[in-house]
Amino acid sequence: MVIVIQCKDKVGLVASITTVLMRKDINIISMREFVNTEEVRFFVRIETTESSDVALIEAELQAVLPNDAAITINPLPDKKIVVLVTKEYHCLSDILIRNYFSTLGATVQCVIGNHAILEELCNKFNVPFYYISHEGNSKEAFEEKLISTIRQYQSDYLVLAKFMRILSPQFVALFAGRIINIHHSFLPAFIGAHPYRQAYERGVKMIGATAHFVTNDLDEGPIIVQQIIPVNHAFTAADMIKAGREIETAVLAKALQLVLDDRVFVYKNKTVVFE
Amino acid sequence: MVIVIQCKDKVGLVASITTVLMRKDINIISMREFVNTEEVRFFVRIETTESSDVALIEAELQAVLPNDAAITINPLPDKKIVVLVTKEYHCLSDILIRNYFSTLGATVQCVIGNHAILEELCNKFNVPFYYISHEGNSKEAFEEKLISTIRQYQSDYLVLAKFMRILSPQFVALFAGRIINIHHSFLPAFIGAHPYRQAYERGVKMIGATAHFVTNDLDEGPIIVQQIIPVNHAFTAADMIKAGREIETAVLAKALQLVLDDRVFVYKNKTVVFE
Amino acid sequence: MVIVIQCKDKVGLVASITTVLMRKDINIISMREFVNTEEVRFFVRIETTESSDVALIEAELQAVLPNDAAITINPLPDKKIVVLVTKEYHCLSDILIRNYFSTLGATVQCVIGNHAILEELCNKFNVPFYYISHEGNSKEAFEEKLISTIRQYQSDYLVLAKFMRILSPQFVALFAGRIINIHHSFLPAFIGAHPYRQAYERGVKMIGATAHFVTNDLDEGPIIVQQIIPVNHAFTAADMIKAGREIETAVLAKALQLVLDDRVFVYKNKTVVFE
Amino acid sequence: MVIVIQCKDKVGLVASITTVLMRKDINIISMREFVNTEEVRFFVRIETTESSDVALIEAELQAVLPNDAAITINPLPDKKIVVLVTKEYHCLSDILIRNYFSTLGATVQCVIGNHAILEELCNKFNVPFYYISHEGNSKEAFEEKLISTIRQYQSDYLVLAKFMRILSPQFVALFAGRIINIHHSFLPAFIGAHPYRQAYERGVKMIGATAHFVTNDLDEGPIIVQQIIPVNHAFTAADMIKAGREIETAVLAKALQLVLDDRVFVYKNKTVVFE
Repeated sequence: MVIVIQCKDKVGLVASITTVLMRKDINIISMREFVNTEEVRFFVRIETTESSDVALIEAELQAVLPNDAAITINPLPDKKIVVLVTKEYHCLSDILIRNYFSTLGATVQCVIGNHAILEELCNKFNVPFYYISHEGNSKEAFEEKLISTIRQYQSDYLVLAKFMRILSPQFVALFAGRIINIHHSFLPAFIGAHPYRQAYERGVKMIGATAHFVTNDLDEGPIIVQQIIPVNHAFTAADMIKAGREIETAVLAKALQLVLDDRVFVYKNKTVVFE
Repeated sequence: MVIVIQCKDKVGLVASITTVLMRKDINIISMREFVNTEEVRFFVRIETTESSDVALIEAELQAVLPNDAAITINPLPDKKIVVLVTKEYHCLSDILIRNYFSTLGATVQCVIGNHAILEELCNKFNVPFYYISHEGNSKEAFEEKLISTIRQYQSDYLVLAKFMRILSPQFVALFAGRIINIHHSFLPAFIGAHPYRQAYERGVKMIGATAHFVTNDLDEGPIIVQQIIPVNHAFTAADMIKAGREIETAVLAKALQLVLDDRVFVYKNKTVVFE
Repeated sequence: MVIVIQCKDKVGLVASITTVLMRKDINIISMREFVNTEEVRFFVRIETTESSDVALIEAELQAVLPNDAAITINPLPDKKIVVLVTKEYHCLSDILIRNYFSTLGATVQCVIGNHAILEELCNKFNVPFYYISHEGNSKEAFEEKLISTIRQYQSDYLVLAKFMRILSPQFVALFAGRIINIHHSFLPAFIGAHPYRQAYERGVKMIGATAHFVTNDLDEGPIIVQQIIPVNHAFTAADMIKAGREIETAVLAKALQLVLDDRVFVYKNKTVVFE
Repeated sequence: MVIVIQCKDKVGLVASITTVLMRKDINIISMREFVNTEEVRFFVRIETTESSDVALIEAELQAVLPNDAAITINPLPDKKIVVLVTKEYHCLSDILIRNYFSTLGATVQCVIGNHAILEELCNKFNVPFYYISHEGNSKEAFEEKLISTIRQYQSDYLVLAKFMRILSPQFVALFAGRIINIHHSFLPAFIGAHPYRQAYERGVKMIGATAHFVTNDLDEGPIIVQQIIPVNHAFTAADMIKAGREIETAVLAKALQLVLDDRVFVYKNKTVVFE
């Protein structure tokens, strides 16, 4: 099983935790621990042999840990996600294929698009698609429709798979810490619109993509994964967009794998990732 | 020999150039050509079999090319550079070692430091070191001293190998297109001071370095080479600085190799690099 | 248009070729040329402005080039491929998705599987699937069935997208230079079966994938693309297989893009790739 | 301080270890633990707050751990190395520069060369150089001379920084687990002599370097670090050698940093590396 804990740091936390496990005759297979000493913050992820006493173990851990401890034991492999898209197919396709072959680490409950063009793809995989246009709606009305659709499902995460609308602070607050976005640049370079055009104008030699949790500040949330690919003078802005699709797909896939495998902690505006 | 040409584009340039070569019985070993169609700008680099008729070939090429053509034939392998440093040793050491073993592609004529601590290293390799402090000098006076020292040598390029002073537009104008800087971030992210601190605060998952030509705008000149290395939550700002040294050294070395091998063209604020 | 030429090298080839183009008022946008001096072999790829005189240009080029010159002009963007698979879905899915969204650079005519489990996926995308089992068939009979199915189509390339049967020299000879395979290791390391198990046993720190043309010698054909990803001590052989899927998918996609874009030349057992 | 332990695995090891630390009021800053379940083998590296009770802590840990436990506490940062070289300067230069600026994590006690050409470089940095030629000596006599020179020093590791002689099993046995080599290929590809020539002949698209511990089997010891760089058709074997120097230097530097920082465990023919 997997045990994931975040709390304020103090002496003896690992001893306390592992003594609980030892008494239950649970063996530790792999353990990653990190203390952010500036923030006096403790993070641990433990993979152990299986146990049927999950509730009891959680109670015993709670008893020996600080009050603020967030403990998750044996996170269910059947997490649930809702995916938001606009027009681009590459990230969504990758998610649907993994979903179909049961290698995503989650179930896609539905896809919501502010354009309809990805509906046919979702239909092929029998994944419900909701077309909710932003046109002819106020932002509030648009988001109300999104929210009421999302609320039909019990999703763990909202995945913005090239969803090109900016969400309001009110919307983000409703799903705090549960919205994952793929941004098409190596943040914090090229924040905002048209990052590939900006990259082309600047003449950079690499373009990147960033998967991050969404907070109120545009493109400013905690970063989960970043990767880059080389480009050169022969790339037009359109070539960069095309090349960027590959890296966007790979980065979002990697971020989802890490988050769904309970390897990502968030504290303030940063992540701890036990890869 | 190597032939390097930049001019405005028109139909038939390659035919004109290669016909000149064919008539001299010169064979083309490798050829890289690029047209920036937006800018109607032509760039070519040709490696050929050797010829003793360099002056004649240049004249014949000039005759068949547009008036604005910049032609360089058989660029001398014994280019000359002056290196400016502050306190950090890593980029300078790499340059001095390559210089000593004749694999730099240039000769280091002298090193100028606004601190004295790298003097001893230069002495080991019998490379003249000039200590020119910025302290107690106006910026103008400081730069005047730099200029008069640099002018003792016939250098092709000034290399800012972790030189931590900002140069004035007047200084830059004197050596237009000939100053190469290594910046300790993946530009345009983290422009300006303390990029590793900024990177740490932002929680990025990669740090980079950028070698670029220096223009009047701080950190805004044409980019030659960019590379990155992964970092994670366990890196302090100090760890990032330490890891960054490796990538800074590698990026500056690569940029120098490309520039000194006549593989880098500059047009407006971008480069064309035939790697 | 794109012009691709391979022939034995001699002085003046580029001049001859580009003079033909100039006389037709065709401008060269991008040109990549390479001479293998050991083999005295000439390779060129030229992107030009469009022309309606393709047949005439080809005739004129043929007239000025050596007899052995292989010239391809304006290669059709609608190439055709047949894909062979066994059980693994990742490479095939990627190909089907790109095919569906018209970004593959080719049309998938059909998929042939020696297991049936990928049939349903192909059905979703209305791509014909042929189940041809190797079981209960001699190798000759099995390959005869493959061949007769393949011959129903006019395909430019056969793509072995994790097809786990070794093809006979007779089969390979029928499609010489037109079979592309993805091998699940960084060749020539771990030739043959179970490369991830071999990699695990050896304790390597990186695993790779290799896309190559198939020749008679197992895993010995001309290499098109290779990439690697880091692994570590915590990876089991099964983890390596899982991680390997990502790199296999990416490497085969990249190789197809290069081949279908006429950027890959084969000579003897090596490729020239103008990326 | 840093605590490094390897022993056979059993339930409760982490609890036992961390309870010892807690009782001494020692806080854990960072902890990396790994169990090789196939081998039932436990590895842990713990960074903690400082303590003056090192001997006592070690005794208490020994008391609670299996008999076979290898415990190292607070490994001295002033490790000592002897470097063996032949003719190539790049790895040695990198080591000498880091040694000179005290960023190597060890002190270079001496350099031994079977050619004399790197003597002058060592002299610049006041590092003793011993010229011990293999010519005119039997292998035994040659190795006897190496051994008697090495034994003048109390070195923790022997670093083969492009030392191009194969060492006998007798020699290797004397320094078991303490010899680090840089091999100029991505092992296990291109084992043995002339790997770059082999890589060129095969037409690979990447070349690599491997740092590993030396065992009796040539190029078969436990791998510490591997990295690659892309190459292409335009690279001659000589170009690959030149490009390879950069990656060899980087890989050996990284391996030394990891080993000297006590982040590398060896068990059987593999390493566990807590990066």
